[in-house]
Amino acid sequence: MRMVDLIRKKRTGGELSEAEIRSIISGIVSGEIPDYQTAAWAMAVCFTGMSDEETAALTMAMAHSGDVVDLSAIRGVKVDKHSTGGVGDKTTLILAPLVAACGVRVAKMSGRGLGHTGGTIDKLESIAGFRTELSREAFFAQVNEIGAAVIGQSGNIAPADKKLYALRDVTGTVDSIPLIASSVMSKKIAAGADAILLDVKYGSGAFMKTAEDAIRLAQAMVAIGTQVGRETVAAISDMDQPLGRFVGNALEVLEAIEVLRGEGPDDLRELCLALGAHMLVLGRRAADPESARARLAEALASGAALRKLGAMIAAQGGDPAVTERPELLPAAPNRIPVLSETDGYVHGIDAEAVGVAAMRLGAGRAAKDDAIDHAVGIELAAKRGDFVQRGGTLAYLHARADDASAGEARSRLLATYRLAAEPPASLPLLYAVVTQYGVRY
Amino acid sequence: MRMVDLIRKKRTGGELSEAEIRSIISGIVSGEIPDYQTAAWAMAVCFTGMSDEETAALTMAMAHSGDVVDLSAIRGVKVDKHSTGGVGDKTTLILAPLVAACGVRVAKMSGRGLGHTGGTIDKLESIAGFRTELSREAFFAQVNEIGAAVIGQSGNIAPADKKLYALRDVTGTVDSIPLIASSVMSKKIAAGADAILLDVKYGSGAFMKTAEDAIRLAQAMVAIGTQVGRETVAAISDMDQPLGRFVGNALEVLEAIEVLRGEGPDDLRELCLALGAHMLVLGRRAADPESARARLAEALASGAALRKLGAMIAAQGGDPAVTERPELLPAAPNRIPVLSETDGYVHGIDAEAVGVAAMRLGAGRAAKDDAIDHAVGIELAAKRGDFVQRGGTLAYLHARADDASAGEARSRLLATYRLAAEPPASLPLLYAVVTQYGVRY
Repeated sequence: MRMVDLIRKKRTGGELSEAEIRSIISGIVSGEIPDYQTAAWAMAVCFTGMSDEETAALTMAMAHSGDVVDLSAIRGVKVDKHSTGGVGDKTTLILAPLVAACGVRVAKMSGRGLGHTGGTIDKLESIAGFRTELSREAFFAQVNEIGAAVIGQSGNIAPADKKLYALRDVTGTVDSIPLIASSVMSKKIAAGADAILLDVKYGSGAFMKTAEDAIRLAQAMVAIGTQVGRETVAAISDMDQPLGRFVGNALEVLEAIEVLRGEGPDDLRELCLALGAHMLVLGRRAADPESARARLAEALASGAALRKLGAMIAAQGGDPAVTERPELLPAAPNRIPVLSETDGYVHGIDAEAVGVAAMRLGAGRAAKDDAIDHAVGIELAAKRGDFVQRGGTLAYLHARADDASAGEARSRLLATYRLAAEPPASLPLLYAVVTQYGVRY
Repeated sequence: MRMVDLIRKKRTGGELSEAEIRSIISGIVSGEIPDYQTAAWAMAVCFTGMSDEETAALTMAMAHSGDVVDLSAIRGVKVDKHSTGGVGDKTTLILAPLVAACGVRVAKMSGRGLGHTGGTIDKLESIAGFRTELSREAFFAQVNEIGAAVIGQSGNIAPADKKLYALRDVTGTVDSIPLIASSVMSKKIAAGADAILLDVKYGSGAFMKTAEDAIRLAQAMVAIGTQVGRETVAAISDMDQPLGRFVGNALEVLEAIEVLRGEGPDDLRELCLALGAHMLVLGRRAADPESARARLAEALASGAALRKLGAMIAAQGGDPAVTERPELLPAAPNRIPVLSETDGYVHGIDAEAVGVAAMRLGAGRAAKDDAIDHAVGIELAAKRGDFVQRGGTLAYLHARADDASAGEARSRLLATYRLAAEPPASLPLLYAVVTQYGVRY
């Protein structure tokens, strides 16, 4: 069948066969299908959607368009974790050592930040000497020995997704549940884990603006995992403000260490305990999330989780002393307060705007090859529910200088804090959990 | 606004401003907007449609993307006529001299055939010596003197439409009422006539499969004409079988001459009288279609219409004797009967299939630069409502030889005749007329 016929079939609501989807993906990768046909097809998918079978076929075709990592050299159940983007999301830095301390194997490949979102690899590189490029053998050996390793995504993972995503980005076709779901899952499946925990964000700073949309996306991804034999669980969590208090590379490592010490902000610790509990169940280290949670709390209280982070850092070439003395991390010379211009309760802080403000200070990249400054970032002094007085501190800029970039970051922060006279209704941090058996609120 | 934002606006059902549509069209023509963005935008339009204002803006932007013909050197109201594609449609060959004989000016630019549809220019070139390329001055002078001229479309008419149509053809986005309507009307407006009569076909051989869709398309085109100050009337006519009895270039000229002599098949004569009546009203040569029809009948009966065709042929370099002695036209050496394999009443003859069969005999082009054979074609012996016995003649192939092409044409014809035991319900040839004031059935 010619591509124009497949486009028409999709446009009129038909269901594409697995072979048809495979031929589309191989045509995209080989360049045989021109971009204009791919773009028209993607737009048709935005309107007519895809069945679970089509979405699974698309995912597998994209997963197999490049390298598929074979983790069989690592013993036990390997559990991967993925967040659908966020600002101030340092959960991987906490969860990898935390669940490894409880016996789950985490062989994680992470990315770098772009635009308003940060990347785990950039954050880890705040630690002097930390190597994020390991050979396959060293990576497997470290996971077998310590239980966890986090490295940069290397090789040719899901090139079809890369090409399709770049095209969707410029053709207004990003926002489609089957296309987002297959994009995320193709990379997770190519990365080789046995089970996958997804943290699907909703709110002003996320792809999905409402909890209902986030649940629909989560259901699509869980359905893919189920269809292709990778057990998948998705947590639906709030991104109506950044997670924790810090946004910026070294600042987020610092906050991760605080949580592993049993300190740190409540929202971040709670989310990590909730996500980690599902990872323990997926990794067959606990029978249910409740007993898993008790094991995780114990690993925090005993210091085992923090020691596991130290072991990971040491194995990857960094100085583990940073876990005891976080002042060894790079720090910005200035901590500039951002003062509120009105009284009120904080109702929300647009996470994307905070991410852009941090990027302007140098913590992120506007373009792929920009250098970043690990030391700078933003500290949120007031968060949702807090009352702030006129002249009170909303946030601090951790900046190189009080210059034009700092001025721009300040105005972005002032503009993004939503204040009101009445306190906001309380929002659950974890809205729901989606498994193959259904949605639990 | 960037193109990706305009695509998103359209995707989410927003209305584009005239300036936004102009920037899209100029970006398409200059190549600044890549094809993949144009394709995604066109697919979004297929789903969300366009308002009357958007469709008019798109039409005018495409009309002004190239040459706009200035017909002001021709006296009187110039009326153009356009059919939305058909098989065996020789109405232009009849209508141009017929309405010119009644005083309406017809300065018509026509196209060549491609695929299963024929082109008026190819048909006229069956007449030895007939020139379809005239200078602008000669074209205007002929219309002023004789009242009618039909030439090939020259120059750079609506290049934006050409580019957009080529892209739509390969991206499954042809079938969209605002896109079809603006494509047709942009070329008509660039061609410069004051008033436009449209013949919108429906049925198996047409773009629009149902009368309702044809009416929607007609309404969109009439709305454009009204918005941009070109009075437009659309007739909705049946294309559930080819028009008349002949398909093929010289064969269709022959049939046109028969009608102009007051003979020829009823369906073709009736449609020409109906369309011509609206052209006389648009050209201010009659107060209403009824009185117009009487004038047209008189022009046929008196021989004035046939003499006008002779004058047109003579002015454009052909031998007008052909109007008296059609045997001067090229004729195929063989007339091969296609015999019915069953008994029954003819319910329909897929016009597209007949067009393809004629193309296979050499009457049409599979690709743009193919040569065509003016002499060959198909003669339909049985049409809708006729009873045919097993072994009776359905059609004749006018062919060079009884070869493989003839065999293929024969099987196509046999496959496309729909026969049944009961006679078909009668269908009106002219289903409705759409004007700016509404639909008249």
